[in-house]
Amino acid sequence: MTFPGTAGGAASNGSGIRRSRDVPGLVARAREGDPRAVARLVSLVEDGDDSLPEIAAALAPYTGQAQLIGLTGSPGVGKSTLTNELVRAYRGQGLRVGVLAVDPSSPFTGGAILGDRVRMQDHAIDPGVYIRSMSSRGHLGGLSAATPQAVRVLEGAGCEVVLVETVGVGQAEVEVASLADTTLVMLAPGMGDAIQAVKAGILEVADVFVVNKADRDGADATYRDIQGMIALGERGPGEWRPQVVRAVASQATGVDDVVAAIAKHRAWLTEHDELQARRVRRAAAEVENIALGTLRAKLGSVRHGDALPALAAEVAAGRTDPYAAAAQLVAAVAPSA
Amino acid sequence: MTFPGTAGGAASNGSGIRRSRDVPGLVARAREGDPRAVARLVSLVEDGDDSLPEIAAALAPYTGQAQLIGLTGSPGVGKSTLTNELVRAYRGQGLRVGVLAVDPSSPFTGGAILGDRVRMQDHAIDPGVYIRSMSSRGHLGGLSAATPQAVRVLEGAGCEVVLVETVGVGQAEVEVASLADTTLVMLAPGMGDAIQAVKAGILEVADVFVVNKADRDGADATYRDIQGMIALGERGPGEWRPQVVRAVASQATGVDDVVAAIAKHRAWLTEHDELQARRVRRAAAEVENIALGTLRAKLGSVRHGDALPALAAEVAAGRTDPYAAAAQLVAAVAPSA
Repeated sequence: MTFPGTAGGAASNGSGIRRSRDVPGLVARAREGDPRAVARLVSLVEDGDDSLPEIAAALAPYTGQAQLIGLTGSPGVGKSTLTNELVRAYRGQGLRVGVLAVDPSSPFTGGAILGDRVRMQDHAIDPGVYIRSMSSRGHLGGLSAATPQAVRVLEGAGCEVVLVETVGVGQAEVEVASLADTTLVMLAPGMGDAIQAVKAGILEVADVFVVNKADRDGADATYRDIQGMIALGERGPGEWRPQVVRAVASQATGVDDVVAAIAKHRAWLTEHDELQARRVRRAAAEVENIALGTLRAKLGSVRHGDALPALAAEVAAGRTDPYAAAAQLVAAVAPSA
Repeated sequence: MTFPGTAGGAASNGSGIRRSRDVPGLVARAREGDPRAVARLVSLVEDGDDSLPEIAAALAPYTGQAQLIGLTGSPGVGKSTLTNELVRAYRGQGLRVGVLAVDPSSPFTGGAILGDRVRMQDHAIDPGVYIRSMSSRGHLGGLSAATPQAVRVLEGAGCEVVLVETVGVGQAEVEVASLADTTLVMLAPGMGDAIQAVKAGILEVADVFVVNKADRDGADATYRDIQGMIALGERGPGEWRPQVVRAVASQATGVDDVVAAIAKHRAWLTEHDELQARRVRRAAAEVENIALGTLRAKLGSVRHGDALPALAAEVAAGRTDPYAAAAQLVAAVAPSA
């Protein structure tokens, strides 16, 4: 089932769940699979609501088990189409699947562009699938903070596989995609993607490359380019060598190979005790992010919010430098050490 | 003149300047226009060297005067070509010009891809031009921290105009480009750039749009698209309305219009007391960034570095949640307030 306000309808309802901040109640209902409760929790997370710590605490016992798959690539490369096919494949295995389509769109305009989402309608009436678009609106720590919390909500709701799809191939997208157990990077012929992948640091985060639109001219060249780059990459003896898979997602061709490559990577992670290690690293980044958000708020409130603007004016005038100014600010917040 | 190690040659020399951390000496020589001293200072900044605070303090009196122009756009849109032409135009006005070509490439591979730089060779023997590529290698605060420091170095070296060119249109690029007094966003026909611009939040940071390759099919449509988006944007009565300029940078066509649009925006900033306000906001972001870097280091060293990994393991196991863990960490660093 899809969420109200995204692919579904019913933006409000009689139960008052849309405005509810009754966290224990929402979590209990999400646990029972109530899609409106899940939707409400994700909205609270996305908005950076004050109830976030309470939500996280209530969900903690049910988290850490789902398989997290990240998917990124340039616009037009076919991410939504492949996501759709992966959902179908995992549903075929009897697994409950969550999809977070993350759009690092403007913090100002506040709202994801949902055009591509329409294709996901294939699964709109499947109660074993949750689909949700997220933007970074309002969330202080940005998507890198909001996304793991939204993943927790989907885990809490019983999703065994969570697909996180990010739009674009910038640093923010790479960061979000790399939160996964397995990160897929999609390329397509003739988009200059291979070079872009290197520039954006994608080579380091990709576990599986999918050369989509493999029936088009130039697909072989793209395949060779990326294989060449992988061959050139420095890799220790015990390190994973990224897989490269060809697909034509729009014809459901190669989807089995993608699923197999993901499974192979997951098996490798388990064998090498890397699954747990990755999750601890992910949790560390998450904790650090949240802590920095808190400290940032503290910096902003030094001398009732007057300190930073005053120091900035001094820096702009060349009367002090930004390091000296920062040191003053830090001393006010964290006097010791 | 270009720097050793980038477009020039002479990666090492007899004077020992390459390894020097004699900050007062380097700054004095940079002030006299010694390109090797400038190069060394930018390298120290880029590497996040321990001498950064000292460098910033020594440069502070000479900063805050240069005109800062940001330039961003998708790969292949013609940024380097336009930058080259803008350098020529400002040199023609007798101004000293610095160029920072910022590549948010991998923090791991550590090194900008310099292909495009070759075109800048036009100015390789002009002593009034400094050209430098930067990557985010090593710098804790990332490019948003390193770039303003590098700008300071170029200001200190007497540059009256500093062009900051960023590769790509992701969030990181927008952030870097928006550090400028005037931000140019380049589009080209048929690249889906207009939609991308909206997604990346570029509409909010662009002061001037340049529709490059304006002699190609689809240029009029791109021009209309972006004009339409500007018309739709919410804007207060005293706010700047982004200009849209057509150009064919490879033929030096429309460059005068770009220069005129930049001048018009600068005049507007001055009239509305916005130039100073922007610089104070920029300084505030800079100070905050540096302070957060310091606090992040403090978070990482709680209990000699053991606290964060231990808390992360608890979170990964579902025994605590990331907010509770973060609160513990923050309490250790900033006990008060």
